[in-house]
Amino acid sequence: MGHTTLKDAVAERSIFDHAPAQIEDSSQLLTREQLLGKLHAIGAERYHHRHPFHLLMHEGKLTRGQIQAWVLNRFYYQQMIPIKDSIILSRGDVEFRRAWLKRIVDHDGSGQGTGGIDAWLLLAETCGLDRAVVASCEHVLPGTRFAVDSYLPLVSDGPFLQAVASSLTELFSGKLIALRMEFLKQHYPWLSEGLKYFKARLTQSREDAEFAFAYVFEHARTREDQELIAKALTRKCDILWAQLDALYYAYVAPGNLPPGAWQSEATSEQ
Amino acid sequence: MGHTTLKDAVAERSIFDHAPAQIEDSSQLLTREQLLGKLHAIGAERYHHRHPFHLLMHEGKLTRGQIQAWVLNRFYYQQMIPIKDSIILSRGDVEFRRAWLKRIVDHDGSGQGTGGIDAWLLLAETCGLDRAVVASCEHVLPGTRFAVDSYLPLVSDGPFLQAVASSLTELFSGKLIALRMEFLKQHYPWLSEGLKYFKARLTQSREDAEFAFAYVFEHARTREDQELIAKALTRKCDILWAQLDALYYAYVAPGNLPPGAWQSEATSEQ
Repeated sequence: MGHTTLKDAVAERSIFDHAPAQIEDSSQLLTREQLLGKLHAIGAERYHHRHPFHLLMHEGKLTRGQIQAWVLNRFYYQQMIPIKDSIILSRGDVEFRRAWLKRIVDHDGSGQGTGGIDAWLLLAETCGLDRAVVASCEHVLPGTRFAVDSYLPLVSDGPFLQAVASSLTELFSGKLIALRMEFLKQHYPWLSEGLKYFKARLTQSREDAEFAFAYVFEHARTREDQELIAKALTRKCDILWAQLDALYYAYVAPGNLPPGAWQSEATSEQ
Repeated sequence: MGHTTLKDAVAERSIFDHAPAQIEDSSQLLTREQLLGKLHAIGAERYHHRHPFHLLMHEGKLTRGQIQAWVLNRFYYQQMIPIKDSIILSRGDVEFRRAWLKRIVDHDGSGQGTGGIDAWLLLAETCGLDRAVVASCEHVLPGTRFAVDSYLPLVSDGPFLQAVASSLTELFSGKLIALRMEFLKQHYPWLSEGLKYFKARLTQSREDAEFAFAYVFEHARTREDQELIAKALTRKCDILWAQLDALYYAYVAPGNLPPGAWQSEATSEQ
């Protein structure tokens, strides 16, 4: 692994290797390639691979306490995934439900220790966090909570196409996770035993992204529908980004903890 | 006005002048004074008079661009108030609705230029912001948006008592606004012509707080109901606090703008 920064890695093995969309007529239905290009352009600007917190993480510049804060807060997002997917499931037809159901199983598993939520708790334990404290979600930053909670109306209100399109960040997540696993192993070797979650997501997210993109492309009948897809992806990027904003503000700089926020042992000893 | 910092002012003319609650039995119904004491203790810790952004504001340490960012983002909260109050209205009985209706009129007014929303847009114009840009809410920080949006499920889901109790931050807002008006005039004289909103709130918020507290005290039949009231107030404090966290992060320190965020003229010239 010769890369020193995420920037180098992105430059060499681009996460966003899709040609930019060439779209001239704002009323014309986009082709498959044009729509994919448009979504990739949104990801290139707004997906959280560019967030300053992730850049610090991938450059090995986070303390153990900051990694813990990330794992603890991000769990709130993880535990919400099967909830939002259940809402989406409730709005689909039988064929859609058969395809979408796997997402819930991927996260919930079929018994203790088998799904993504348990795998995230394993990551938490590997970080030295108390499993029950993380699982309680009691110490999540309000900013993280509000961002994640906003995922529910995004999938329950508005057109069904919007609900499905909100998952399209998975177009980008596979490559980000592959990079992240390398960087985590390199810079935080004490985390190496806790990476089961990411390993599983590598294949899961590719399958999910392919299905979701094929579905929204096929069901978007008008250019307005396609714009709605782009808007849902933008909002979802905002949800991911705002979680990291809250984390950076509280645990990196300026380091202002909101009332009641979780403190790492290092912080509380100061 | 001899105070130099909000801290001094709070110490002298305490916003939170209520005796702390003496509560020994965790199952016993609280008296009026005990409940009020409990709510004031929450405010003393969590109300946004203590937020670092407000402290900077009240000490005269914000730039014009930072004041503009506050006014622009806070408008998203202002325009949501009559929406959340309409939801609360829809859940009350006729007597409740008669009392609560005034809140909607306070903010919407009875014609152009007469309500709190228009008064906030006047403040925006006084700051040098474009009225239409602010009114569009297009440039609101995602963190602000998610925090404010979470006000809606807080009043639409869960018990009606929770919906009413979420307004109890008005127990504290009158005194904060009185202080703020003095500090704004002192430190940002170019804002003086735009303070109509705050002036109106001085009396409105006192009336509103008295009604809401009387209502929740009367309708809380069990200690669990009273705990629910306290929890709703806590969550509402989080909503106010998280808006300022997002603002501080983007416009004070570290100054990381999320993708698509509003930039002040000073910032965009840099």
